[in-house]
Amino acid sequence: MLEFARKYDPQPFHLDDDAAAETHFGKLAASGWHTCSMTMAMMVEHAAIEPRASLGAMGIDELRWLRPVYPGDVLSCEMELAGKKLSRSKPGVGILNLKLTTFNQHGEPVLTMRPITMVRVRG
Amino acid sequence: MLEFARKYDPQPFHLDDDAAAETHFGKLAASGWHTCSMTMAMMVEHAAIEPRASLGAMGIDELRWLRPVYPGDVLSCEMELAGKKLSRSKPGVGILNLKLTTFNQHGEPVLTMRPITMVRVRG
Repeated sequence: MLEFARKYDPQPFHLDDDAAAETHFGKLAASGWHTCSMTMAMMVEHAAIEPRASLGAMGIDELRWLRPVYPGDVLSCEMELAGKKLSRSKPGVGILNLKLTTFNQHGEPVLTMRPITMVRVRG
Repeated sequence: MLEFARKYDPQPFHLDDDAAAETHFGKLAASGWHTCSMTMAMMVEHAAIEPRASLGAMGIDELRWLRPVYPGDVLSCEMELAGKKLSRSKPGVGILNLKLTTFNQHGEPVLTMRPITMVRVRG
C-alpha cells in the first residue's frame, strides 16, 4: 500500500496515519488507484473475461470510491454483465457494459464502476 | 510497464509484443490503470491541488483510454476546473469537478477523465 502510494499517489493520507487522522479517512488508507488496480488483478486472475477474448477496455463510467481501504483489508469483487452489443465500427468486436463492485471483508462496498470492455466475438 | 502489468493487469497485450500484435494495440502497451496512476503521480508531484487542501477524490466520471501508451512514451497532462460547489453534507468541504487530459509526446490525448475531488475550503 505504501509502495504504491509513494510511486503513484503520495498524498499525506496515503502515507501516514497522523495525516490521515485529520481527514475523513481516519487512518492510513490505500490510494483509490491501488484499489482499482487490485480489482483489475482479481478480474484477470479469475478470468472474469475469457483471456483470449479480451481486447481491453475503452473506459470506465461512474467510478466511485465509497469507503476507505485500510491496511490488512481483504478485498473481493462481483461483476455483472449489464449490456452487450456488436461494435459498429470494428468487425468481429463486441462491446460489454459491466457493473463491478469491490467489497471489503465486512461485505461493505468500497468501489463501484461501470467498465466498457471490448471482446472478440465468436464465428 | 511490465512490472505494473505483472502485478495488476497481466493480460497478454500488456506483457508481450506478439500477443499485442493481434489486437488494436499493435505492440506491447501499458495497462490503462498504469496510465491513470502515472497521471495521478503528475497531479500530486506538481501540486495540481494544493496538498494541504486535498481531501481525496469521490470518484471519476467518463474515464476513456483513447490511445495505447507504449514503452518510451513521455506523458504530460492538463487539468481544467469545470465546476466547484460547497458540500451540502460536509461543512468546510468543497467539491471540485475537474477535466483531465493526458497526452503522449506527439500531443495526442491518450486518456481523458472527469475526477470529482474534495478539498478543504478557506475560512
